[in-house]
Amino acid sequence: MSDSPILLTPGPLTTRLSTRQAMLRDWGSRDKAFIALTAELRTRLLDVVHAGASHVAVPLQGSGTFIVEAAIATLVHRRDRLLVLVNGAYGERILAIARRYNLDAIALHWDEHQPVDPERVDEALSADPGITHVALVHCETTTGLLNPLEPIAAVVARHGKALLLDAMSSFGALPLDLRTTPVAAVLASSNKCLEGVPGLGFALIDRDLLGRATGASPSTSLDLCAQHHGFEANGQWRFTPPVQVVAALVGALRALEAEGGPPARLKRYQENLDVLTAGMAKLGFPLYLEPSLQAPIIATFRPRPNRPFDFEALYEGLAERGFLIYPGKLTAGDSFRIGCIGDLHRADFERLLAAVEEVVG
Amino acid sequence: MSDSPILLTPGPLTTRLSTRQAMLRDWGSRDKAFIALTAELRTRLLDVVHAGASHVAVPLQGSGTFIVEAAIATLVHRRDRLLVLVNGAYGERILAIARRYNLDAIALHWDEHQPVDPERVDEALSADPGITHVALVHCETTTGLLNPLEPIAAVVARHGKALLLDAMSSFGALPLDLRTTPVAAVLASSNKCLEGVPGLGFALIDRDLLGRATGASPSTSLDLCAQHHGFEANGQWRFTPPVQVVAALVGALRALEAEGGPPARLKRYQENLDVLTAGMAKLGFPLYLEPSLQAPIIATFRPRPNRPFDFEALYEGLAERGFLIYPGKLTAGDSFRIGCIGDLHRADFERLLAAVEEVVG
Repeated sequence: MSDSPILLTPGPLTTRLSTRQAMLRDWGSRDKAFIALTAELRTRLLDVVHAGASHVAVPLQGSGTFIVEAAIATLVHRRDRLLVLVNGAYGERILAIARRYNLDAIALHWDEHQPVDPERVDEALSADPGITHVALVHCETTTGLLNPLEPIAAVVARHGKALLLDAMSSFGALPLDLRTTPVAAVLASSNKCLEGVPGLGFALIDRDLLGRATGASPSTSLDLCAQHHGFEANGQWRFTPPVQVVAALVGALRALEAEGGPPARLKRYQENLDVLTAGMAKLGFPLYLEPSLQAPIIATFRPRPNRPFDFEALYEGLAERGFLIYPGKLTAGDSFRIGCIGDLHRADFERLLAAVEEVVG
Repeated sequence: MSDSPILLTPGPLTTRLSTRQAMLRDWGSRDKAFIALTAELRTRLLDVVHAGASHVAVPLQGSGTFIVEAAIATLVHRRDRLLVLVNGAYGERILAIARRYNLDAIALHWDEHQPVDPERVDEALSADPGITHVALVHCETTTGLLNPLEPIAAVVARHGKALLLDAMSSFGALPLDLRTTPVAAVLASSNKCLEGVPGLGFALIDRDLLGRATGASPSTSLDLCAQHHGFEANGQWRFTPPVQVVAALVGALRALEAEGGPPARLKRYQENLDVLTAGMAKLGFPLYLEPSLQAPIIATFRPRPNRPFDFEALYEGLAERGFLIYPGKLTAGDSFRIGCIGDLHRADFERLLAAVEEVVG
């Protein structure tokens, strides 16, 4: 639709028209056609990260936070201890969710501009053998920082612990291969790098781990064991699924394959980021993170040095020109964020940069 | 779309094409345009049952079960006791959800073909002053039975208890006026009589009751207090909303108003039911319930007496002709269900009856 803005946010984001058009029909949620669609969804989600041999895909109604909470409620039990690796708001949220359930959860903290350090994780696991699970946010949307998954996963595996990976902002674009990287549960949602519409999360969970989790969740709706048993029993969702959102996500997964899979998508996002950061630097807006830590997902910018900064004015000026950017989420100092993901291309960022120049003068 | 089947189910159901077309655009979930859409949604939901002066509207991502669980998690606390009035699977589900949270929940049971009896509720509340909340399913989708809300609400109010009403299958069509009927919390979803698409539930909660519930929910995602505070703080959703599902529901609420509101919708559904039951009776299929207990939402039919019955054959025959019906959910004996709700009219049921006649011969 011509009246859709260009969304430069961490999601919901700009989707293909064909993805939205997949929502133009009604589906009987217990009919064969929708059962087949659900099966295709679950298979395609596993295929994105080569997890078909080891994991099961459990989609769940709701936002990304719902699937993160569901994984904790289902997989972390009364006698377990969860270590959360925190360098942003989404790590803090995992900690808060676990503590709200009165689970035994502890944390290691880093500054927002620092990646999680595998050595400190190693030390913590050596010092406290009671830890059973470790939670990591792959790409911290707070800043756009990419945490070093491979060495952290290796450390966690060496200690024999289960790694829960919040891959919300990375799944479908950043490299992840569950045949070689030991991750017990990968959590993500429909409306980030998969470029579907919001309304669904999903967990890819190690079969054995899920098998040991029956009946543990205090929540009925968020019980991923029961959700999985429902799919296995008759291919249907336990509770009414958002049928149009499912159809859009299957359409988006087919489009991901047609584009060339995660490597092709990463290449496009990286080009978007490169055009964006080079152009913003030229306009005087510094990137917040060290470039080597910056994921091609969403970039945090600081105001121009020694120039007045008015986020509302920038937001409004860009909105009038059809671009929606995102406020900053740093704990200190002014900032704003511009996303690189969605059905966006180099030309969109070139137009955006021209608009920024117009607005800030 | 011409390839959408006619859905004769309790939801997801047949929606207007214009409702689905409302999903054709992208929305920034934190942008002014979407904040305005959310505000319109919340106001319109309250207006359907005249609750603007007493209640607040709290929409939540997920299916109907999610909002039922969220209301229990948020409103029923450790020292409370919940009495669940059960005459079908959805009453049982409320009981199971509460017990899963280790809440103090007890139940009164009736047979599936019997309505909840206000006198027994009165006796139970007199005998056990420790009960703090009472949960009732307005229309039990298990059978299609309409429970007598008015006298039950009066009894619960007389005892000074809080009534939680699962109005999933009734909201938007059956009469409900919160100015005159005392209900502490009304729970429903987007994809039943409101004729939106699935992916959203909502609770209309008495302001004072919600005010006393801060911080009580063990679940973060399902905490309706925090969800409400999010809307009140800046008009935004705490966690990513299913923006297209919200847009479809606002479109559907505008269409409800244009149709003439709940009385007009009830009239249409009643006509659908009357055409359906008269035609099915003529074909030899008896209605399961006493007609006076039958809500014009979904009807349970028994097989024709002394004739072989094969649900799969009936389902397939009708599916080939473009109609999707629903299996029965009775605890004993064969049955099947046919819904009357959605964007369906007399002519659809006349065509359905012709198709049933063709299939069963």
